[in-house]
Amino acid sequence: MKIALSQINLHIGNFEFNCSKIEKNIQKAENDGCDLIIFPELSVSGYPPLDLLEYKDFIERCYESINKIAKSCKNVAAIVGSPSYNKNKRGRPLYNSAFFLVNGKIEQVFHKGLLPNYDVFDEYRYFEPSESFNIINYKGYNLAVTICEDLWSLDNKTLYVSSPMEQLSQQQPDLLINIAASPFTYNHHLERKSILAANAVKYNLPLIYVNHTGAHSELLFDGGSMTFNPGGGIVHEMEYFKEDYHITTIDSIKSSGGRDISTSSGKYEKIKLIHDGLITGIKDYFDKSGFKRAVLGLSGGLDSAVVMVLAIKALGKDNVKALLMPSQFSSKHSVNDAVDLATTSGVSYDILPIKEIYYTYDRILKPYFKNYSFDSTEENIQARARAILLMAYSNKFEYVLLNTSNKSEAAVGYSTLYGDMCGGLSVLGDVYKSDIYNIAAYINGPNRIIPQSIIDKPPSAELRPEQKDTDSLPEYGLLDDLLYNYIELQLSPDEIIKKGFEPSIVNEVISMVNKSEYKRAQSPPILRVSSKAFGIGRRMPIVAKYM
Amino acid sequence: MKIALSQINLHIGNFEFNCSKIEKNIQKAENDGCDLIIFPELSVSGYPPLDLLEYKDFIERCYESINKIAKSCKNVAAIVGSPSYNKNKRGRPLYNSAFFLVNGKIEQVFHKGLLPNYDVFDEYRYFEPSESFNIINYKGYNLAVTICEDLWSLDNKTLYVSSPMEQLSQQQPDLLINIAASPFTYNHHLERKSILAANAVKYNLPLIYVNHTGAHSELLFDGGSMTFNPGGGIVHEMEYFKEDYHITTIDSIKSSGGRDISTSSGKYEKIKLIHDGLITGIKDYFDKSGFKRAVLGLSGGLDSAVVMVLAIKALGKDNVKALLMPSQFSSKHSVNDAVDLATTSGVSYDILPIKEIYYTYDRILKPYFKNYSFDSTEENIQARARAILLMAYSNKFEYVLLNTSNKSEAAVGYSTLYGDMCGGLSVLGDVYKSDIYNIAAYINGPNRIIPQSIIDKPPSAELRPEQKDTDSLPEYGLLDDLLYNYIELQLSPDEIIKKGFEPSIVNEVISMVNKSEYKRAQSPPILRVSSKAFGIGRRMPIVAKYM
Repeated sequence: MKIALSQINLHIGNFEFNCSKIEKNIQKAENDGCDLIIFPELSVSGYPPLDLLEYKDFIERCYESINKIAKSCKNVAAIVGSPSYNKNKRGRPLYNSAFFLVNGKIEQVFHKGLLPNYDVFDEYRYFEPSESFNIINYKGYNLAVTICEDLWSLDNKTLYVSSPMEQLSQQQPDLLINIAASPFTYNHHLERKSILAANAVKYNLPLIYVNHTGAHSELLFDGGSMTFNPGGGIVHEMEYFKEDYHITTIDSIKSSGGRDISTSSGKYEKIKLIHDGLITGIKDYFDKSGFKRAVLGLSGGLDSAVVMVLAIKALGKDNVKALLMPSQFSSKHSVNDAVDLATTSGVSYDILPIKEIYYTYDRILKPYFKNYSFDSTEENIQARARAILLMAYSNKFEYVLLNTSNKSEAAVGYSTLYGDMCGGLSVLGDVYKSDIYNIAAYINGPNRIIPQSIIDKPPSAELRPEQKDTDSLPEYGLLDDLLYNYIELQLSPDEIIKKGFEPSIVNEVISMVNKSEYKRAQSPPILRVSSKAFGIGRRMPIVAKYM
Repeated sequence: MKIALSQINLHIGNFEFNCSKIEKNIQKAENDGCDLIIFPELSVSGYPPLDLLEYKDFIERCYESINKIAKSCKNVAAIVGSPSYNKNKRGRPLYNSAFFLVNGKIEQVFHKGLLPNYDVFDEYRYFEPSESFNIINYKGYNLAVTICEDLWSLDNKTLYVSSPMEQLSQQQPDLLINIAASPFTYNHHLERKSILAANAVKYNLPLIYVNHTGAHSELLFDGGSMTFNPGGGIVHEMEYFKEDYHITTIDSIKSSGGRDISTSSGKYEKIKLIHDGLITGIKDYFDKSGFKRAVLGLSGGLDSAVVMVLAIKALGKDNVKALLMPSQFSSKHSVNDAVDLATTSGVSYDILPIKEIYYTYDRILKPYFKNYSFDSTEENIQARARAILLMAYSNKFEYVLLNTSNKSEAAVGYSTLYGDMCGGLSVLGDVYKSDIYNIAAYINGPNRIIPQSIIDKPPSAELRPEQKDTDSLPEYGLLDDLLYNYIELQLSPDEIIKKGFEPSIVNEVISMVNKSEYKRAQSPPILRVSSKAFGIGRRMPIVAKYM
């Protein structure tokens, strides 16, 4: 049986767009003489549709789309993900389903059994878990169709009490199919591969896995669809962060040698994929929200330099505008470096000094602040004065403001709410400062795109004379390591101290993290590249006592 | 058997505070000769602890607290809510549990079976649902202990496929106990009562229901703990938005006449409870985050007037600071009305005109904006200039900025991101403009607290000459009605049109709502009073096509 894997980039709620892309791929598969084409989870609606699933007409449009797509399945069958109604008397109103379409109609519907409800996932919010699972016989082959998390119940994966594959494996399947909406994180990849391989091995079946590619606000989907032989070897690995199309047969997957999951295809390198993922995130945010152009504040520091280069790669240099907004505390080299980068990148920039604005505020506030000395209030006024200029450009010219904060700053609250925390999208908010150096090095490669002086200078907010980040924070290597233990690994302070960190630093840093929940609650959406990003996947009380 | 119901206000993660309050109440119950005292769901940790539950030391501190509390249960037993470990090999790592403490130790632990995972609830994120339920025999009585949602599976409540009470009712219980963390919404109350009453009737049992009171960021818990006789009549209804303590006996609940749930106790009136809830929300936000003082922009309009009065009631007039920040477009009466209100309320205020700031921005931006006319850009600059002044006061004097936007504006995006959308807490963001008039009338009663001229003037943002809200929006009665259908009732555009709304207005308003998801994603936490507030209970994609 000849099967096409269709790894596509969809748009939540854009049924015309999604349908048309699915139908074109079905046509292509038919032209290629395929018997079956497989699309990702919830293809018809895009993933995650969130509370749009609670609107009746949204579900009706999913059904209309499925019915329309079914009509185009004449000589080729398709497996297409869509929500479906739960017709039982009890339980949540929907299932997360895979529709098997053939002969111009819906032949069978499979429902997801294991619903992820952790980190960024909320599937129990909408869906009833299925408890019975059946294979389908098509052209003499028994197909076991599963949906993403359905395979995530193994002897060493104990989150779920049941396992759909235990039922399906009783029914003599010849092929295991998994349609997925599995978001990218730079350290999730090996786990994903090992779970797929373990299923192939455990049930001694060839396995086809089809994932989304593309971004939806903060969530990045990296594609990387794969086929595995029954020994758990990777037979084919599709592209990352690109649409892709691949034709195979059950027999060829079954009989191919396959590559061990621990060996690299060369397609998967951490910094390259973060880089490609962030570009996808920017591009899709703009494409899918109908905006074309970005504005950002270019400070002469590393973070805004990296964001600008990524934005140029995503949108084209003509669609990126830089504002340089020096204050009385900005160093000469910062402005020069920013001008240098903008010029060599071919990006249009304007220089708008904020000194005059700052002094206006100062004059107005002086009668009330006269007994108080310069503190973070005045630092924040500068950051906020810049935000107003950036937002004025955004409003006047329909630019989306790109936020340039990094994860280290966001974590400890070393940032100004309504100042440098502004933006429609945070590009680096899930990238620790240490990794931003690596991204800069990757961007530069053998060339000099980001000037070395920007990379070499000590990080500074330049909001008071001679300020350095290390005045208020531990140096970034240590800080980022500590934050990773607290945020990604969710270790408690005592556990982190036991790993050898200085107790006073652990307590100080964690206290800073906890005290800035209120700031992060108002952060722009952050492109998610780690296993625990600030945003929808990390839900902390704003008013609580912890530590 | 003599039983105390302890309706208390707790603090998430503040184990010392929570423990001490629980222990004091146990002591009181012992002094009162009670056999048992009942506390709300997850009392030890506070509700909702969110992702703090994913930290090992957080759970360990819950256990430490429970063990400590158990020691104080010598002559009186206690039912106390706390997370507990799931010791099975499979399933999520925790249960949402009720600990039965007696004789100085943990006698039995009951686990929640039905886990709410809709609107503001995410319990599947943390907890494994229990599938077996047992009563406990204490002093000759069989007690059926359930946790909140466990009672929400009835013939007409079909969200869940199982029902803990079906198992428990087989075991000859004498009393049905329900410990809850049931948040306030102004229209949820009758449903809550009717479900409790239906359980009492269906299982022919006296019922004791104990709820939290107090606020955690956006979530308001209204208390209103109750006892029901086996006929479903309310025997006793405790206070709303106050701590309360009530002693009863099984026999007296069983034999008391009881009041029908449809008759009012006089304790439950929509506008009064919204009013009390908002005050609790402000007060607890400050108390629990360690702040004392609030600042707000007082425009002379209705919304900021109401927020100021509520803030005074919550924090005291000496802890509220008002800034009047007229622009060149502010009407004379606005400033006068604001001064009038501040003066009669005894609130300290400063007047900081923003005209000079506005002209400074104008001068700096003119070279770049010269071919463009005045539009929302310049309106937003005014709103944002005010935000900088307010935040400067907040930073300098440790005020928390109270946001004064209302739900109607938030819904249609008639507000400036980083301008009037700023604040640590949004007081009225879940109250439609129409209801703000009702709150103002309730506040005024027979007195003149909010000047009539503030109530009577046509709503205006005063960001351009002679501006009125109705220039850009339908009048608020119509708008709010339409928004209620779309947001609270989650009706699709076609369904709303079928109810008789003008199609063009429906499409325009819903399009405005959908297009401003990106703004609301950066909103301050909003005190939740309705069944569907903006915030954690409403999760819409930021980049999507719907309509």
